[in-house]
Amino acid sequence: MLFRQLFDAESSTYTYLIADHTTKAAVLVDPVLEQVERDLKLLKELGLILHYCLETHVHADHVTGTDRLRQATSCSGIVPDRAHVACADRHIKDGETLHLGDITITAIATPGHTDSHMAYLVNDDRVLTGDALFIRGCGRTDFQSGDAGTLYDSVTKHLFTLPDETLVYPAHDYRGHTVSTIGEEKRWNSRFAERDGRGANRLRHRPSFIEFMNHLNLPDPKKIMEAVPANEMCGHLAATA
Amino acid sequence: MLFRQLFDAESSTYTYLIADHTTKAAVLVDPVLEQVERDLKLLKELGLILHYCLETHVHADHVTGTDRLRQATSCSGIVPDRAHVACADRHIKDGETLHLGDITITAIATPGHTDSHMAYLVNDDRVLTGDALFIRGCGRTDFQSGDAGTLYDSVTKHLFTLPDETLVYPAHDYRGHTVSTIGEEKRWNSRFAERDGRGANRLRHRPSFIEFMNHLNLPDPKKIMEAVPANEMCGHLAATA
Repeated sequence: MLFRQLFDAESSTYTYLIADHTTKAAVLVDPVLEQVERDLKLLKELGLILHYCLETHVHADHVTGTDRLRQATSCSGIVPDRAHVACADRHIKDGETLHLGDITITAIATPGHTDSHMAYLVNDDRVLTGDALFIRGCGRTDFQSGDAGTLYDSVTKHLFTLPDETLVYPAHDYRGHTVSTIGEEKRWNSRFAERDGRGANRLRHRPSFIEFMNHLNLPDPKKIMEAVPANEMCGHLAATA
Repeated sequence: MLFRQLFDAESSTYTYLIADHTTKAAVLVDPVLEQVERDLKLLKELGLILHYCLETHVHADHVTGTDRLRQATSCSGIVPDRAHVACADRHIKDGETLHLGDITITAIATPGHTDSHMAYLVNDDRVLTGDALFIRGCGRTDFQSGDAGTLYDSVTKHLFTLPDETLVYPAHDYRGHTVSTIGEEKRWNSRFAERDGRGANRLRHRPSFIEFMNHLNLPDPKKIMEAVPANEMCGHLAATA
């Protein structure tokens, strides 16, 4: 498997290029509009055929590169089940899989940051967690039908139940981390873990997480007014003008 | 092996944390002063014992975290042979190895960006190329006793002779790439590769590389006046004040 983590510094977004060496079939997960030329160049140099652009969710902090990549290649745009993206080629449901040669990508419904968010398990050894789970953090839950209790359930019941050694690849990082593991996040992600009276780490209680998330008082992402409508049109900017 | 790529956004520097799962022995390659707290926190969370801070070269664009990490842990600071760093605990020569449990790190002399630069081959499947080889680029050669012809020889004779599938992890990236391979760089790094008359990629000739590098006309790195003297003191800022 070819697995490449790519970074957009302006929005601190990670895009993932995953491809099968034998068939050259490739997917880009969470591509960023401003990085489309970089990504097309890389696909060409590696001799890959882009089959899919796959979104973890409708983003509020950057515009997806899907529309431009779909114009430049023969790829399909895939978004989570129930995402309001009428122009998508396919909506993917919880438990559904994509195959690229020997690679299997399985969608895991992980709503809470938005109401239609998917994580993607790749070959059972790594999970793209989108904005559900960051390295020592998680996505906010105060817009786009987000809900803190729903996010708590998604992370604790559907991500923290993966094997501890599963690699965690998030959609963003703001501190320079690139990868973690489920075991590490269960123990050290302070949004979900806390110290008990004897200094050991344990899962934070659900009401405590909700209380914390509901009082973050964050400003809106700079691009939200542009990004959400554009992403509901697969990243086609002109359609939203 | 635990292998973590860490990023400092201000200087676009990659630091690498490499550790042996069994013995918990760890090395940080090219740590950045401003990221020392992050790195110490990660070492603590992962239960690692920092044995070494290892430099690819005396940096001009950031101050090393070695001095502060050496104060906070029992680690040794290691720099390339002939680097002007009197306070280093050890100078490492071409071909010398470091061992962390089952992990072997081998120094490969790759001067040219500076006159005392090392790349580090990790377990024969990945190479930390420092500023000798970037993804589709290379470090400049116009200060710190840099020399374009020397860099050409280092890259073409000592890095491009590694197996094509060897993973390339550079000390910097400015376009959001995280990893490449030797085979990719031999073919697609336009500093070292060019198209022949039939559209195939071939190695650029040495005089053409030297001519290109000697006419980059880049401004000095913003931190050069602070970083070089500080790094010659292992990153001890007060000693240079």
